[in-house]
Amino acid sequence: MAEQSLDKRNILLSLCYDGTAYHGWQVQANAGTVQQTLQNVMEKVLGYRPPVIGCSRTDAGVHANEYFCNFHTDISIPCENLRRALNANLPDDIAVNLCREAPDDFHARYSACGKEYLYKIWNSDTRNPFLNRYALFYPYRLDLENMRAAAAGFLGRHDFSAFCSAGSTVADTVRCVTLLQLTREGNLVTLRIQADGFLYNMVRIITGTLLGVSQGLFQAADIPQMIRSGSRARAGKTAPPHGLYLNRVFYEPMAADEK
Amino acid sequence: MAEQSLDKRNILLSLCYDGTAYHGWQVQANAGTVQQTLQNVMEKVLGYRPPVIGCSRTDAGVHANEYFCNFHTDISIPCENLRRALNANLPDDIAVNLCREAPDDFHARYSACGKEYLYKIWNSDTRNPFLNRYALFYPYRLDLENMRAAAAGFLGRHDFSAFCSAGSTVADTVRCVTLLQLTREGNLVTLRIQADGFLYNMVRIITGTLLGVSQGLFQAADIPQMIRSGSRARAGKTAPPHGLYLNRVFYEPMAADEK
Repeated sequence: MAEQSLDKRNILLSLCYDGTAYHGWQVQANAGTVQQTLQNVMEKVLGYRPPVIGCSRTDAGVHANEYFCNFHTDISIPCENLRRALNANLPDDIAVNLCREAPDDFHARYSACGKEYLYKIWNSDTRNPFLNRYALFYPYRLDLENMRAAAAGFLGRHDFSAFCSAGSTVADTVRCVTLLQLTREGNLVTLRIQADGFLYNMVRIITGTLLGVSQGLFQAADIPQMIRSGSRARAGKTAPPHGLYLNRVFYEPMAADEK
Repeated sequence: MAEQSLDKRNILLSLCYDGTAYHGWQVQANAGTVQQTLQNVMEKVLGYRPPVIGCSRTDAGVHANEYFCNFHTDISIPCENLRRALNANLPDDIAVNLCREAPDDFHARYSACGKEYLYKIWNSDTRNPFLNRYALFYPYRLDLENMRAAAAGFLGRHDFSAFCSAGSTVADTVRCVTLLQLTREGNLVTLRIQADGFLYNMVRIITGTLLGVSQGLFQAADIPQMIRSGSRARAGKTAPPHGLYLNRVFYEPMAADEK
């Protein structure tokens, strides 16, 4: 880590946000982002604008039930006071659920050893007025049995280039998917996926591909070959962002917690 | 019922709506309402604008999981086609879940023999970005034990004048509350109330009064006296509309269903 961090407190925040109004996490010119909104509020609360490290970029319109970020500061405000001050100044669609000190070397992105996303689908011939912004409305029959068979093909360590949108600059495209579940509660179908990391749009392309399986465009048995092809053109469509939630981020137990 | 209904089909609709953008159900000058929005779409779909009878007025900002209305028409469009056409033309925050023919004498309001409302409270010191429009954010401790004891005082047949906002023109203010439950799932507390009918703002004033009990402003034992007083000034505040949902409407089994 940067030397400056050694004599500074390393503060960890856990956020929850409705991504509808944001162009994702990362600061961009000419577009409101979660990082920008948080840093504006920090400037007001702390009197300056610390750089904040996020656990991942999220796409425009994607939500987070649990998003971790950290920043270094010399300011001695108690964590719980900082949390309250941030919540009092943030807009209603972002909340800080947790604020604590982390070990010096904790880095919200590089220390993460895994993540879990949810993709929610409202599967009924009638839309749900309360979920327009929070789940994909999919009015056709979902063949969960075939989708589950296909889901099994994604498990394990693979080069997921075929499930990565153009524009990514990541060199290593190998990821290990450790869980991919589909559950139904009434009309709400939830896809839950865990991996050590995700490529750009990976969950949305996997979701679109599983919808393609339900539509009969692909067979469950096609998935391994689709992965091996490394070709984005072979996989399914990118599902829209508003059904997607970053749900959990996994870290090794922190040194400070073990004392 | 009006004679005209005898040679017309009586069509029953069940709606679900997010009330955030509406000034309640009933048509008003200079304000968008659910009834108005529905009738605009009916004009487009049916070629004319039938008067639609709603099961109740709902206040501005109140939601409905199940709202019944009916109208009479000579047009012979099959119910399922009508339902699809309405859904295709309604805005995203209103959905038609059911469309069927009802007996001639069915009246969405007068035939109702009871209703159930929910009032949702997000009870945490941190707001939930996904529930800003869908639950009251209440950051203080809720004393559910005392609130439940107070709730019992509302059960039964009473004159609920003390729990009715000014502006109501109802002559008979006696109602029978048959159920008043408080449940907690994590940070979400739900009040569920059933009665043969409700006065203007009755659920919101009962909710505000139960919050007053939790705050120590009232004792559970005060409720019967508060009801007997018939004085709105004795009861608690009117809780805000965005936590309230019309959840079910009860009708006697319809003649047509018994054949």
